[in-house]
Amino acid sequence: MAERTATMWGKSHDVTVHQSDPFNAESSLAVLVQEPVTSAEDFYVRNHGPVPELDPRLWRLSVEGMVERSLELSLEDLQNRFEHHDVAATLQCAGNRRSGLAKVHDIPGHPWGPGATSTATWTGARLADVLAAAGAESGAHHVAFEAPDIAPEAMPPERFGASIPIAKALGNEVLLAWGMNGHPLPAVHGAPVRVVVPGYIGARSVKWVERISVQERPSQNFFQSTAYRLLPPGIDPYNAPPGDGLALGPLAVNSAILTPDDGAVLPAGPTAVTGYALSGDDRGIARVDISLDGGRSWQQADLDEPLSPWSWTPWRITLDLPPGDVEIIARAWDTSAAVQPEHEAPLWNPKGYFNNAWSRINLTTTDRPG
Amino acid sequence: MAERTATMWGKSHDVTVHQSDPFNAESSLAVLVQEPVTSAEDFYVRNHGPVPELDPRLWRLSVEGMVERSLELSLEDLQNRFEHHDVAATLQCAGNRRSGLAKVHDIPGHPWGPGATSTATWTGARLADVLAAAGAESGAHHVAFEAPDIAPEAMPPERFGASIPIAKALGNEVLLAWGMNGHPLPAVHGAPVRVVVPGYIGARSVKWVERISVQERPSQNFFQSTAYRLLPPGIDPYNAPPGDGLALGPLAVNSAILTPDDGAVLPAGPTAVTGYALSGDDRGIARVDISLDGGRSWQQADLDEPLSPWSWTPWRITLDLPPGDVEIIARAWDTSAAVQPEHEAPLWNPKGYFNNAWSRINLTTTDRPG
Repeated sequence: MAERTATMWGKSHDVTVHQSDPFNAESSLAVLVQEPVTSAEDFYVRNHGPVPELDPRLWRLSVEGMVERSLELSLEDLQNRFEHHDVAATLQCAGNRRSGLAKVHDIPGHPWGPGATSTATWTGARLADVLAAAGAESGAHHVAFEAPDIAPEAMPPERFGASIPIAKALGNEVLLAWGMNGHPLPAVHGAPVRVVVPGYIGARSVKWVERISVQERPSQNFFQSTAYRLLPPGIDPYNAPPGDGLALGPLAVNSAILTPDDGAVLPAGPTAVTGYALSGDDRGIARVDISLDGGRSWQQADLDEPLSPWSWTPWRITLDLPPGDVEIIARAWDTSAAVQPEHEAPLWNPKGYFNNAWSRINLTTTDRPG
Repeated sequence: MAERTATMWGKSHDVTVHQSDPFNAESSLAVLVQEPVTSAEDFYVRNHGPVPELDPRLWRLSVEGMVERSLELSLEDLQNRFEHHDVAATLQCAGNRRSGLAKVHDIPGHPWGPGATSTATWTGARLADVLAAAGAESGAHHVAFEAPDIAPEAMPPERFGASIPIAKALGNEVLLAWGMNGHPLPAVHGAPVRVVVPGYIGARSVKWVERISVQERPSQNFFQSTAYRLLPPGIDPYNAPPGDGLALGPLAVNSAILTPDDGAVLPAGPTAVTGYALSGDDRGIARVDISLDGGRSWQQADLDEPLSPWSWTPWRITLDLPPGDVEIIARAWDTSAAVQPEHEAPLWNPKGYFNNAWSRINLTTTDRPG
C-alpha cells in the first residue's frame, strides 16, 4: 500500500510512493494545483523495472529498421546535429484514477488516484528531424522504441518498449528529450534521453530510449502487444493473447478535482475548487462543468489558458457550499465535443485503464463561525 | 411532424420527411442496415434553405482570400485540371438522435432519430489540390465555404456557409465532389459540386459550394459563428452572441441500433440485432458492446470492416432474447478509447446536438410457437 517516503530518487516528501522497486510514485494533488508546470521532485513516476543509471558519455541511440541510413547517435550528436525544441506537455499514466475503478471490482496494479499525471517543459530534438536524417522508407507505418530497463512483469521478463504510428511520430510535438524544466533529465525520468509523446498515454513516452526502429507493424514488445490494452470485462489479462483488445494510444478526455481533498470537513460558504482537465491527441478542453446536485444542473468553471496545445487546462471555480454533506462533480468536454461519461462501473476493465468518469468528491461542511 | 411522402427530390418512399421546405428527410433504419453504402434515394437530407437548381455549365467556384493566386473554376476546369478521387465517407448531422434529447426536455428543431446519417462513395477533386493550385499563404488557419442557398432561420436571412481548420482542409479525404455512388450529384445533395468533409458534422460539408475563402479566422457565417454550437443548458440559443459555446467539428463516438425496431413485438429466442458505429476525425471503431441487463454485463458485437477510415462500422450480433420485456443497449468505443456516455439527460443542450448516449431499444417478446 501507499507509504510516505523521504527523498528516494530525488522526490519530495509530498509524493505518495506506491512501490519502491520498481519505483512508482504519485504526485500530490495539492502540489499539482500550485503551478501549471510540475517540478521534477513532484512529478509522478511509473516504472516497470529498476532505474538504469546510464553514463551519458557512453549512451548511444540506434535508429534502424525501414530507413535509408541507420544511425548511431551519441548524446552530443543528438544535441549538436539537431535543432533544440521546448514543448510544455502533460504526461498521464493510462492507470490514472484506477482507484475509482478498483472500488467497483478488484483490479491488480497500483491504486493510482488522480495524481498519476504531471506537466513539464521538455527540451530535446524532434523525433521527426531524427527520422528525416535516417530517411524513413515508404511502407513504414510505426516507430518503435526500446529501453534497457528489464520488466519482471512481462513473461518472460523483457526490456520495456512501445510504438506509435508514424503519423504521430512525425508530429512537431514528439521529442527525444534530454531536458526537463530547464535541467538535465533526472535518472528516474529517463536520463540521458527519453521519448516524449504528448497526447498519448505515458507508457509510450519511453524513458532511457536506446533503440528506435521504423517498421511496418506495431512493436511486438509486451507493453505494446499485451499490456496497456483495453480489454472487455470477463477476459483474464494474464492469459489474453497478444493483440487482444485495443492498444491504448491517445488519452480520452478526463478531469479531476484537486482541491479541496475528498472527504474534507470545512466551513460552508464560498469555497475555491480547483482541478485539471486534459484530452488526447491535439484536442483541447472546451468546457468544464461543475455540479452540486448530482449532475442535474451545472456551472462552468473558469479555465486557465494551457501552456501549449499539449498541456493540461487548470480550472477553478468558487462554489457557495451549503451546510451538510456535499458532493462536488466535475466533468470536461474537449474540442471534439467528447464528454466524460457519468459512472465508473460501466468503464471497469480488467487492467483498470482510462477511468475518465465524472470526478466526484464528498465533503462535510460545518456552519460558519457566526 | 414526420409524414410519409412519395418521390420529392427523387427520394424513396422509405425516407421520413421532417420538413418539405426547406427539405429535410431522415433515412429509414431498415434501409440503412441493408448496405454499407446508402443509395442517393435513401440518403438523409439536411437543408436550411430552398434547393438551388444550378446550371452546371454556368456554375463557377471562386477560390480567394489568403492565396497567392485567386482562382475561378468551372466544373470542367475542376474535372480537367485536378486528379479524381473516390472516398467512401459517412455523413452525419450534428442533430442525429436529437429525439432522445427532446424526451428529456423540449428542443426546437427537427426530431431526428438515428437515421440522420448515411454513407456514400463520393467522387471529386481533393480540396488540398485546389488549395495548392491557389497557393495558401502562411498565416492562413481556416478555409471557409459559401453556398447560394438562403437560410431564413438566420437573422437576417443569410447564405449557408461554414469553415474548417486548414489542417483538416489539407487532408486527402476532403473533396470537392461532383459524384455520389458513381452518378452525378443530385440537386438536393449539392449539384453540381459540394464539399465533403469526412469525420466532421454534416453541416461542414457545404452543398452547392460557390466560394472558398482561405482566411486567418473561422467563418463569420451564422452556421459557423452562432448555430451548430454546443451550448451549456440555461443559455437561450436565440439570444446567445456569436462565438458562444463550442463550434462543432469532428463527430463524437456514436452508435445506434438499426434493427429490430424500437418497440417491436417478436418471438423470444435467437434474434439478429444490427446497427452502426462511427467516430469523428480519423478515429475508427474499436469495439461495440451489447447489454441485455442495463449495462451490468456486455457482449461484443461482430464488426464489419468499414469501407474506408471515413466510413461507419456496421455491426451485428445474435442475441438469445428472454421472454417478456427486453431492453437492448449498444455502446461503441473508438480507437482513442473514447466510449459513449450512459444517459441522455446529462448530455441535454439547448440545440440538441451530439446525442451520443448509449443506444437503447425496448422490445416485447412472445413465446416461440411450441
